[in-house]
Amino acid sequence: MTKNTNIRISLPIVCFVWQIAMIILFGVFIRYNEESDTHWIEHKRKNNISSNIENDFYYRYASFQDVHVMIFVGFGFLMTFLKRYSFGGVGFNFLIAAFGIQWALLMQGWFHYLDHEDWKIKIGIENLINADFCVAGCLIAYGACLGKVSPVQLMVLTLFGVTLFAVEEYIILELLHVKDAGGSMVIHTFGAYYGLTISWILYRPRLSQFKNLQASVYHSDVFAMIGTLFLWMFWPSFNSAIADHGDGQHRAVINTYLALAASVLSTFAISSLSKKYGKLDMVHIQNATLAGGVAMGTAAEFMIMPYGSLIVGFCTGIISTFGYIFLTPFMERTLKIQDTCGVHNLHAMPGVIGGVVGAISAAAASETVYGSEGLINTFDFKDANRTVNKQGAYQAAGLCVALAFGLVGGALVGGILKLPIWGDPADTNCFDDDVYWELPEDDDENIPVSIHSNTNHVINMQPEIYRSNL
Amino acid sequence: MTKNTNIRISLPIVCFVWQIAMIILFGVFIRYNEESDTHWIEHKRKNNISSNIENDFYYRYASFQDVHVMIFVGFGFLMTFLKRYSFGGVGFNFLIAAFGIQWALLMQGWFHYLDHEDWKIKIGIENLINADFCVAGCLIAYGACLGKVSPVQLMVLTLFGVTLFAVEEYIILELLHVKDAGGSMVIHTFGAYYGLTISWILYRPRLSQFKNLQASVYHSDVFAMIGTLFLWMFWPSFNSAIADHGDGQHRAVINTYLALAASVLSTFAISSLSKKYGKLDMVHIQNATLAGGVAMGTAAEFMIMPYGSLIVGFCTGIISTFGYIFLTPFMERTLKIQDTCGVHNLHAMPGVIGGVVGAISAAAASETVYGSEGLINTFDFKDANRTVNKQGAYQAAGLCVALAFGLVGGALVGGILKLPIWGDPADTNCFDDDVYWELPEDDDENIPVSIHSNTNHVINMQPEIYRSNL
Amino acid sequence: MTKNTNIRISLPIVCFVWQIAMIILFGVFIRYNEESDTHWIEHKRKNNISSNIENDFYYRYASFQDVHVMIFVGFGFLMTFLKRYSFGGVGFNFLIAAFGIQWALLMQGWFHYLDHEDWKIKIGIENLINADFCVAGCLIAYGACLGKVSPVQLMVLTLFGVTLFAVEEYIILELLHVKDAGGSMVIHTFGAYYGLTISWILYRPRLSQFKNLQASVYHSDVFAMIGTLFLWMFWPSFNSAIADHGDGQHRAVINTYLALAASVLSTFAISSLSKKYGKLDMVHIQNATLAGGVAMGTAAEFMIMPYGSLIVGFCTGIISTFGYIFLTPFMERTLKIQDTCGVHNLHAMPGVIGGVVGAISAAAASETVYGSEGLINTFDFKDANRTVNKQGAYQAAGLCVALAFGLVGGALVGGILKLPIWGDPADTNCFDDDVYWELPEDDDENIPVSIHSNTNHVINMQPEIYRSNL
Repeated sequence: MTKNTNIRISLPIVCFVWQIAMIILFGVFIRYNEESDTHWIEHKRKNNISSNIENDFYYRYASFQDVHVMIFVGFGFLMTFLKRYSFGGVGFNFLIAAFGIQWALLMQGWFHYLDHEDWKIKIGIENLINADFCVAGCLIAYGACLGKVSPVQLMVLTLFGVTLFAVEEYIILELLHVKDAGGSMVIHTFGAYYGLTISWILYRPRLSQFKNLQASVYHSDVFAMIGTLFLWMFWPSFNSAIADHGDGQHRAVINTYLALAASVLSTFAISSLSKKYGKLDMVHIQNATLAGGVAMGTAAEFMIMPYGSLIVGFCTGIISTFGYIFLTPFMERTLKIQDTCGVHNLHAMPGVIGGVVGAISAAAASETVYGSEGLINTFDFKDANRTVNKQGAYQAAGLCVALAFGLVGGALVGGILKLPIWGDPADTNCFDDDVYWELPEDDDENIPVSIHSNTNHVINMQPEIYRSNL
Repeated sequence: MTKNTNIRISLPIVCFVWQIAMIILFGVFIRYNEESDTHWIEHKRKNNISSNIENDFYYRYASFQDVHVMIFVGFGFLMTFLKRYSFGGVGFNFLIAAFGIQWALLMQGWFHYLDHEDWKIKIGIENLINADFCVAGCLIAYGACLGKVSPVQLMVLTLFGVTLFAVEEYIILELLHVKDAGGSMVIHTFGAYYGLTISWILYRPRLSQFKNLQASVYHSDVFAMIGTLFLWMFWPSFNSAIADHGDGQHRAVINTYLALAASVLSTFAISSLSKKYGKLDMVHIQNATLAGGVAMGTAAEFMIMPYGSLIVGFCTGIISTFGYIFLTPFMERTLKIQDTCGVHNLHAMPGVIGGVVGAISAAAASETVYGSEGLINTFDFKDANRTVNKQGAYQAAGLCVALAFGLVGGALVGGILKLPIWGDPADTNCFDDDVYWELPEDDDENIPVSIHSNTNHVINMQPEIYRSNL
Repeated sequence: MTKNTNIRISLPIVCFVWQIAMIILFGVFIRYNEESDTHWIEHKRKNNISSNIENDFYYRYASFQDVHVMIFVGFGFLMTFLKRYSFGGVGFNFLIAAFGIQWALLMQGWFHYLDHEDWKIKIGIENLINADFCVAGCLIAYGACLGKVSPVQLMVLTLFGVTLFAVEEYIILELLHVKDAGGSMVIHTFGAYYGLTISWILYRPRLSQFKNLQASVYHSDVFAMIGTLFLWMFWPSFNSAIADHGDGQHRAVINTYLALAASVLSTFAISSLSKKYGKLDMVHIQNATLAGGVAMGTAAEFMIMPYGSLIVGFCTGIISTFGYIFLTPFMERTLKIQDTCGVHNLHAMPGVIGGVVGAISAAAASETVYGSEGLINTFDFKDANRTVNKQGAYQAAGLCVALAFGLVGGALVGGILKLPIWGDPADTNCFDDDVYWELPEDDDENIPVSIHSNTNHVINMQPEIYRSNL
């Protein structure tokens, strides 16, 4: 029953060795690009760029910082909802995201940004955003495993997750030439199925006997709302961060803003409908309200029209909330998938919906709506062969690739993580920060009487005395 | 005494029907504008716009996201201060804001942005900001009713609030041609009196007997500081978000930044002065520190000079804090207005002050200070008849319109909300999340001894045994 | 033993008098600059500026808001980690920052921005950022004294801190012509040694007997993570906020992003290595993860290369964590410096490292790497005499100036703060909000049974009965 959760050797080694590897690989491969290099002044003159404000930095920096907040505060605090796993939720999220963005800069760099003259990867603000995006996939996967894995396992999950992501992204965006600005497929579908498959492989049959800690307390739910809201508010930045300059970014923001708003209403409706007296469930509000943003990831740049965005958000909010009510218990009982944060409802289903919406709206695109230049611009058509119908088919193909990478990748990595060397907790210790963190003593009750004389706390007592008294 | 607070039918119906109505109305009326449409590329060429960076998106997007944070995290967390109403504070704020922004896009669209060629509303980033602004009025009104109304009532409050707001805003900004970039009058004065009048109509005479839950606990006060600080920090964005490009936005930020800083000092001073030993009161710090931002809403764009901003912030901080000390108890006792968050002190009085400051500084504007082009630019003078003196008078008239809409609108909507069909809580259940939310069990004390053996908690005990022991 | 902590006279007087002094001084000295003044429209024409987007506002506003968040939420919440000093942590941070930014606008204005024609200080967005920066120094100093000083003492600390900062900054940036965009030397080294010296002067020999309140509880640690993460995420904005337009800002962001990521991994590694079973310590995670940002403050703009940033972050994370493990206890025991937040580990050492890294990388700069124009641009070389080697030497000299100002200034101000007139708490009352704040009663346990009948709380009991029962 007891497991060795001592990570005093393994965690430092993994952190040190991998960080040093990053330093070496960065030394060999990574340089500034022409917009972040001191040669920008010459580049500007050569390319007749009239002003510093034309540096891509000023098109994307505000969005980048918002995305950065989503990754670290959004995902991090969303995972603080458990009563005794808030440290692990926000802390391990911090660790693996900080590692993942470095590895992502390399992996994505090799596939997308390699300068074939000097074999260097030239980075700028867009790379930082893409690295954050890439890490988002792994953080989603973490959500499925929350509380059941060790930080060392999470580092391994991230190492392989980023690697798989970069390959999958290369196939989808570069080879299939699919559009997916907000990553419904590339990020959410992949990340969710990657995590769910891992969680399936790591199934703990007796975990349901130890449900005590797999619950929230009042204030941990409020902490989780910090995560929810920062994700919700900044999702327009997420879906527009690497969209086309000008109308592309502008439209992606509007569409995402609307889809999210509609999600909120349908989530509240279904949540209230599902409980006695119409009481709302914080789990739904914390999660399903975000489904509209996920589902708008692919089509955010398209002329899906404001009402189209509302429809997508409305339907996804309903489906996601129903997922929490019916699907999560079913999956745990029947499919043996323990999905702590319900990423299947928040990322997997909405991600697939997003991919399908993207495929349909691409296939339905027309010059009447987009204008001839606008159509070419939006879909980046480079040769005459690619029609909107073909684009729609390729979009659907992209979704399948994301799914396949998630499932197969998750199975492989799950197998690796099942090895008994990673310091994962016993069933009795799941969802408990005490395993991997020095915890404070939380003796509010022990504050001397003289200081807080007005409180009604049970104070200044030793539990031993108390118990003996009974 | 007991009331039917079952909202299992009413809340889902309201959410569903209204969201579907939004979808239909958006389908009929709302389209992208020329800057968010794929035709931007052609529009750019036609209008000799040299670069994508000239898209209004890049002038306003950073401010938009800040305003968005204020609406959802700022207002939301400011209302988490009650010990057992944090879910309702942040959760219902989320719900009504998400509905309100959709309805605001339509209402404001019909009045301000309707294209009279094709009868469509063309939206862009500025509309999103304005929708957030419009919703702010309703969230202020929510503050006066916090803990005493059902979510269904709040949806009704928002539906009518947004409608009234759009009409009032049209009269003030379009017909009277009044300047109010940060909405001292349009948002704060209107919203506060709207909410206070509703609260007056919904007066609960016996509520003061159940004060137990109308208080904070230590950590709920810290949560509320999250709301306070995000409002405080991003208020410069609020007041500058729809100001003129260039110096207008720049100046609005400086003025607001300074007014807020001065508010903090005068709030701390009065708060300390008002209590034994000079102890500070969190209610004052959480609220009155923001008064300077409210009061700078109208004049933010004007050449009020840095010291002028400091004076405004300094005085408003004093008045607002005094309001919390003397006026709120007086209003509750004598005027029968129960103002949970003290919006009269934070929004009503500072809003009126802001309107007056705006009127005076407009009337006092001169070509010497503004420059002749600057004067026309700042006040958007379109014909020669409008002088600065007239502008000042119109500004004052705008303030009266905002007041009238708040009071009359609040009376009407209060009457509707008084109907016994909305599932509002009994006096005994006010300020209690248990009425509308599934609550976690909060059994920190019940964590097995083996895990937290070092804690001094009273542990592993059934309250029944405990009580029988006595 | 007991001390007079009544600040009912002193705090209001300090707040009022100083705020009124600010108003008068602003009236005499501060005006808008040509980019925030209504004459911008004429200035634009005169200087052939093609568009409003060229207003410095649009280069810096997003960064400014991020820095603002760091100052008020970042520093504020980082200091909420103590179990009973969260109000003081976030509240006094708010107070002194709000005062400090006003005084900084004046002090920095006199030294850097005085228009020698009309003897006015002309302010714009860059001044607001610089004022926030200046205040950061004082907030760092507050970290060393957290819980041991009165708000009046903090106001005095800030008044002198800002004054010293402005002089030191003038010497370093203007006279020595040193580059320090993110303030490793000017802000962090100065601020930390200023605070540590004050803390040394105010040494409380018997404080270690009252360690009960100098600890965190579970949720206060989660609150502190809000501060940590907002500092961590927005540090790229901090280091780039006043960097050169174009590639300067772009590169500063990339370098800081990378240094911070590397810090996280080395902090987790050392933290895990230092404890039984490899358990992580929240103090390390909350603080040492930020060390990379501090250490990248000077060299952020330089061509230090992505791997260079990783190395700096990696090493600083290690050193900072070791500081928390070994140096803080040693300093308290042997050097008699009680450093509540460990600013020596987070700001002093990384700040010095940052200064040294800056000096070395400036001295090693070459035309090969920077390009001839880029070199002049980056280091702002104005005459031919200044070579990169000289620049390196001047950078090192700048570091010494910062150190000297911190140590000497801290000694002087510490002497002033030692006077027994400032209402500081007795040793028994340190780290306790009860001294300066009205505290809520926190009687969660006292909620009537009928409402929370499912909870396992010990409920509805008077502690008196309870105690008598024993």
